[in-house]
Amino acid sequence: MTPPSRPEPTAPAQIAADPPAPSAGTVEALRDAVLSSSQAWETTRSLVDEVGPRFAGSPGDRAAVAWAQRTLTAHGLQNVRAEKVKVPRWQRGHEAAHLIAPYPRDLVVAALGGSAPTPPRGITAEVIAVPTVADLDKLDRKAVEGRIVFFHARMERTQTGTGYGKAVSIRTAGPSAAARKGAAAVIIRSVGTDVERIPHTGAVFYQADAPRIPAAALSVPDAEMLERLLAKGPAKLTLTLDSKVLPDAESANILGEVPGSSAPDEIVLLGAHLDSWDLTPGALDDAAGCAIVIEAARAIAALPRKPRRTVRVVLFANEEFGISGARAYAAAHAAEIPRHLIAIEADLGDGKVLTASFLGSDTARPAFEALVRPLVPLGVTFIPDDAHGGSDLIPLRALGVPLADLHQDATRYFDVHHTPNDTMAKIVREDLDQAAAAYAAFAYAAADMSGDLGRIPEDKRQRR
Amino acid sequence: MTPPSRPEPTAPAQIAADPPAPSAGTVEALRDAVLSSSQAWETTRSLVDEVGPRFAGSPGDRAAVAWAQRTLTAHGLQNVRAEKVKVPRWQRGHEAAHLIAPYPRDLVVAALGGSAPTPPRGITAEVIAVPTVADLDKLDRKAVEGRIVFFHARMERTQTGTGYGKAVSIRTAGPSAAARKGAAAVIIRSVGTDVERIPHTGAVFYQADAPRIPAAALSVPDAEMLERLLAKGPAKLTLTLDSKVLPDAESANILGEVPGSSAPDEIVLLGAHLDSWDLTPGALDDAAGCAIVIEAARAIAALPRKPRRTVRVVLFANEEFGISGARAYAAAHAAEIPRHLIAIEADLGDGKVLTASFLGSDTARPAFEALVRPLVPLGVTFIPDDAHGGSDLIPLRALGVPLADLHQDATRYFDVHHTPNDTMAKIVREDLDQAAAAYAAFAYAAADMSGDLGRIPEDKRQRR
Repeated sequence: MTPPSRPEPTAPAQIAADPPAPSAGTVEALRDAVLSSSQAWETTRSLVDEVGPRFAGSPGDRAAVAWAQRTLTAHGLQNVRAEKVKVPRWQRGHEAAHLIAPYPRDLVVAALGGSAPTPPRGITAEVIAVPTVADLDKLDRKAVEGRIVFFHARMERTQTGTGYGKAVSIRTAGPSAAARKGAAAVIIRSVGTDVERIPHTGAVFYQADAPRIPAAALSVPDAEMLERLLAKGPAKLTLTLDSKVLPDAESANILGEVPGSSAPDEIVLLGAHLDSWDLTPGALDDAAGCAIVIEAARAIAALPRKPRRTVRVVLFANEEFGISGARAYAAAHAAEIPRHLIAIEADLGDGKVLTASFLGSDTARPAFEALVRPLVPLGVTFIPDDAHGGSDLIPLRALGVPLADLHQDATRYFDVHHTPNDTMAKIVREDLDQAAAAYAAFAYAAADMSGDLGRIPEDKRQRR
Repeated sequence: MTPPSRPEPTAPAQIAADPPAPSAGTVEALRDAVLSSSQAWETTRSLVDEVGPRFAGSPGDRAAVAWAQRTLTAHGLQNVRAEKVKVPRWQRGHEAAHLIAPYPRDLVVAALGGSAPTPPRGITAEVIAVPTVADLDKLDRKAVEGRIVFFHARMERTQTGTGYGKAVSIRTAGPSAAARKGAAAVIIRSVGTDVERIPHTGAVFYQADAPRIPAAALSVPDAEMLERLLAKGPAKLTLTLDSKVLPDAESANILGEVPGSSAPDEIVLLGAHLDSWDLTPGALDDAAGCAIVIEAARAIAALPRKPRRTVRVVLFANEEFGISGARAYAAAHAAEIPRHLIAIEADLGDGKVLTASFLGSDTARPAFEALVRPLVPLGVTFIPDDAHGGSDLIPLRALGVPLADLHQDATRYFDVHHTPNDTMAKIVREDLDQAAAAYAAFAYAAADMSGDLGRIPEDKRQRR
């Protein structure tokens, strides 16, 4: 998404000059109530401690589905239901990378999600290093053929998380780009901002026109060592990955609602994803997001006066390995799509919400800005850039459903993203509570607003 | 060690009022030369990248011994030699901890160094949690018998590293304390200040009066999760450790010298330890210390005018698993002990030197203070507390050899201590260079001083 330059938040004093929105008192009281008595940390803990890793189709995924139904019900949501989703299954096995030359050394490695396996004895080859896919493209096939390609571009740490989008192509596109030039395998520097000895996994996108070669991520310190050694001379390593593809499995999107008081057929959708990568308890990604939207809905459900429209929580199945749940939701709810006022997803960890942005009818932008005005005292700034939307909103965006971003501080997020290190120890409770308060206030204001937010113009329905 | 309260460093202006030490010009020029052109980072990198893990008796240890001889020679030291040391051998094997109840979960674990193995199928038992050994001592045997004891005291982060001494008894003494009450095994919260998903190993000290039960460390996030679950109800886990003891092996202390110009038989000893724990490349512990003392000696060797006494670098074998090298050195050099003016060890990572302290003849304290005066502009403060000395100096201390501490900032040290995460990525070059400059200046000043520093009084020769 576009990196916003963050102006100082408008002072609350200026807000008071505007005419109050119809439900302003309620929205502000709701916001403050969540801020002071949020259960979001406890909900995050519950998913992390009691379920843990929950990769699509795994036993943990089944436990998460049961957890979600139980939890939405216990938090006062109605119409709690599981909607079946078919998910692909990929399973990590033994994995190892052993440097043979110039010095023997075990490297810390993790297969990328979906990686093909190596032969049982591994692939042993010389390493050729390039920072990015564009750098690889400049090389002759002869320099690459039979080698292990090592992509070592560094991810930049930014508050908005924009470094990820710039760096991630070494993981998503690197393996097929290398395979097209005859590479035997790919290793990458983990796409992350930490310097811990823990690799970051994430999906590889194999292209149809290239052989599916094995691909894995080194921890950042291992990648930096390899880069130092390659600056002095050749290096050779053995990569062994024992992954496999299993038959598709069944998972589910879990839905729960606070039914609208006067327009229950109209929907404000609060999304997050229930799954995690296989090797992580997924505290920030995305137990925190689940907890934020559950907490927002819980607080609204507890109010004596419900908003006019329905607030629907959707905990999507399998975001990580192909957004299966998002596609299934859009298909199953096709008839309802025109009645989705707006959709928003919490999938950027536990950070504070810093900015609010919108994608919908351009004429509706002032109405959206009014919706987020009660968030200003939380430190949230409206920015006029188009919202990006979470991954699970891609199918809804394609159908024109307006999107909001309540963009969280992503400074720390990519330190642990897609790693075993994404644990409760990294959750900052007060930041998480601020995010829950922002989601709650926004959801209520949207569900109770007059008028609507139009549709996304045709030319903005696909992500660029 | 005693936690010093750190006063502001004495201003250099005050120093100027004192009469200059005989070699003051040289010491200060040396200090500034090391600060501006230190090779300490490159020496650290060389040991970490080219040798890596080097646990006593392992192939890495043999590679380290060869590296040290090569490196001391290349850095201009003379009389470079290996002195044989017999070391015990312990080998880590497969290790796993799996929580069975209340929820299934793999925990990140590492055997403590020297731990006995479990049976091949592991030990499965209820967990009983206590913070410290003192808390365990209050329990009835019946509460402990047959259980896995979980020590979960937290280590405090301090600049001086004093939190380690307070917390480490759960690792060193916990296993035998638990065994005396009939425990089946011990797990501990890693003794470290980080919250990463990486366990800290370190030696267990089995007592003769207790069965040797298996003992392992959980990563801090895993320990915190287990603590949360145990606060709600019982927990059960399976611990599997496949360690073994092998026959003693041969290692070596590596010595190198800058021979004294007029009193070459008198020695200023600069120590560090060459070995690391098995699972870590040991960048801070203790490649950085080796690099600091090598850099100090290299810079002194490069001077046109050598100090009066010999500066001897000793890279000790096997500090981590029983200070074998330190004992061997004291035995092999018994005749020379009276001619050791002072000994100092660098074994606290890459941090800046913050304080200087002394242990020797009380009447020699003012002379020591004069020696460290050239370190004041580096931000080093003399403190009148007794020096503690590195672990490898315990045998010399027992023989009365005066000790110095150039105590480094340990704020970050215990984040990675005894973990695979102790890598070059954690080395702060400018801090390391300051430490090398401090060691160089101190070593020169001591080696060139008039008079001597006496002996440690009998009642202070044993560590408390």
